[in-house]
Amino acid sequence: MPRIAYVNGRYVPHAQASVHVEDRGFQFADSIYEVIALMNGRLADEEGHLDRLERSLSELRIALPMPRKSIRIVMRELVRRNRLKNGSIYMQVTRGQAQRDFKFPKGISPSFVMIVYNATYDTEARKKAVKKVVTVPDLRWKRRDIKSTALLPQVLAKQAAADKGAYEAWMIDDDGYISEGSSSNAWIVDGKGNLVTRPTANNRILKGVTRNALQALCKREKIKIIERAFTAKEAYKAKEAFTSSATALIAPVGEIDGHKIGNGKCGKITAKLFDLYMDYARDNPPPQQERWNPK
Amino acid sequence: MPRIAYVNGRYVPHAQASVHVEDRGFQFADSIYEVIALMNGRLADEEGHLDRLERSLSELRIALPMPRKSIRIVMRELVRRNRLKNGSIYMQVTRGQAQRDFKFPKGISPSFVMIVYNATYDTEARKKAVKKVVTVPDLRWKRRDIKSTALLPQVLAKQAAADKGAYEAWMIDDDGYISEGSSSNAWIVDGKGNLVTRPTANNRILKGVTRNALQALCKREKIKIIERAFTAKEAYKAKEAFTSSATALIAPVGEIDGHKIGNGKCGKITAKLFDLYMDYARDNPPPQQERWNPK
Repeated sequence: MPRIAYVNGRYVPHAQASVHVEDRGFQFADSIYEVIALMNGRLADEEGHLDRLERSLSELRIALPMPRKSIRIVMRELVRRNRLKNGSIYMQVTRGQAQRDFKFPKGISPSFVMIVYNATYDTEARKKAVKKVVTVPDLRWKRRDIKSTALLPQVLAKQAAADKGAYEAWMIDDDGYISEGSSSNAWIVDGKGNLVTRPTANNRILKGVTRNALQALCKREKIKIIERAFTAKEAYKAKEAFTSSATALIAPVGEIDGHKIGNGKCGKITAKLFDLYMDYARDNPPPQQERWNPK
Repeated sequence: MPRIAYVNGRYVPHAQASVHVEDRGFQFADSIYEVIALMNGRLADEEGHLDRLERSLSELRIALPMPRKSIRIVMRELVRRNRLKNGSIYMQVTRGQAQRDFKFPKGISPSFVMIVYNATYDTEARKKAVKKVVTVPDLRWKRRDIKSTALLPQVLAKQAAADKGAYEAWMIDDDGYISEGSSSNAWIVDGKGNLVTRPTANNRILKGVTRNALQALCKREKIKIIERAFTAKEAYKAKEAFTSSATALIAPVGEIDGHKIGNGKCGKITAKLFDLYMDYARDNPPPQQERWNPK
């Protein structure tokens, strides 16, 4: 069975999924993306991702390519055609195709692409796969709240980590604080045992959907989260550290810039949050969660 | 005669010029571009653009897709097939196509796309088409020396200008100085009659090829250029102002944020530089010019 993609209204074999070279996603990174995990046939945090998609598009004045209800249908149809049980859906909406010109062209429609990836979500294996993190300067633009495909700085950060045998790069902003990972949010359990992650104010980091879900779950479970920025120096002395993201989920961090975190294994709070998230994403109805506020 | 594009080794009708949705140019803006003007059948500043292409690619550790000699041949073949006399060639090199992953994939080849556009280069008409400029905050990343397709900030800047009926946005950096235009370098003739443009040091702006050519021409003509940053406030009081870029060439600026520049028409020094540049680009052998230093 060939892998199937969705491109601008058509289901096509993955190998033939293409866009014109004058698509503004290709020439200008004038586009938005989301990645949604599929676990046991259930789309994890679907509404949170679609909320954020709408919000990012609205910041760029790109119309939603179709009503949300239709997006949900296309996702399910793509999952069905690919007979996918576990993996992820990648979707990208661009401003559309037009003769190259920086400013927004008139009279074009957004391009809409959806592709799927296989993956396994084995919680116990992932808890054991403790990750290394390195820190790098945060070179990104100032609108990090917009989930755009202008991802070159993140690509370079991730590669800088890979060059050092690490899994993720935590980016240090101009004030010396960790902003976030190149494709994840950054969390620590600090010296006092507090669960700490950076606030999302001032467009300084992306408002992670998995981060949001963890917040809601922690609220339900009465686990306190302290939202404050922290430095690499503080992170080196953390009792636990982990990243959160849509498909890497909760990834325990055992080493930051060569400093061992805790005993170098998945910490207790990390493991508990991982279990909570997996229960939520796989089987449970979503807990009460604040809807994305587009403004 | 259909318009012809070049995509990964093949000459194809423009309408069929496409790339896979997993091309890293589309998903990550992991790619570099150049635009070269064609005037009277002559590629303006060809070597300067190819020097910069190589330099940008090398900063991203992307291989040149083919030897420079072959790129020159493809450009000429594309011009020939399109029977193009005046216009521009747009070329884009991406890291290539691979399953989506932030870090550099192994074992892939760069994608290479070339398309052409028609244009006219009527110097006198362009001197009369005096442009409006507005200033906007510079939201870009820190590696502005790399000519990447992660152009979303520039798109938003250009649109902010268009929203105000202006042609170009001059971006103001965190220190309060004008960095450059969204798709051009910024120049003024200051109150003392000095020709001023910002230095390219510290990766703060793109090293414009047209800017370089102007430098070489001014050197030849013994016109002094002062390289220093200037503020919007200083620009408001400038005697003349203009932008330089590969296809907009030397564009006179008659208004900045509503402040009239000089008498609102193309200034004398601007006009002289425009003529010098057009002579150089159209007919003359290139003046002695410093080759791009890749490091």
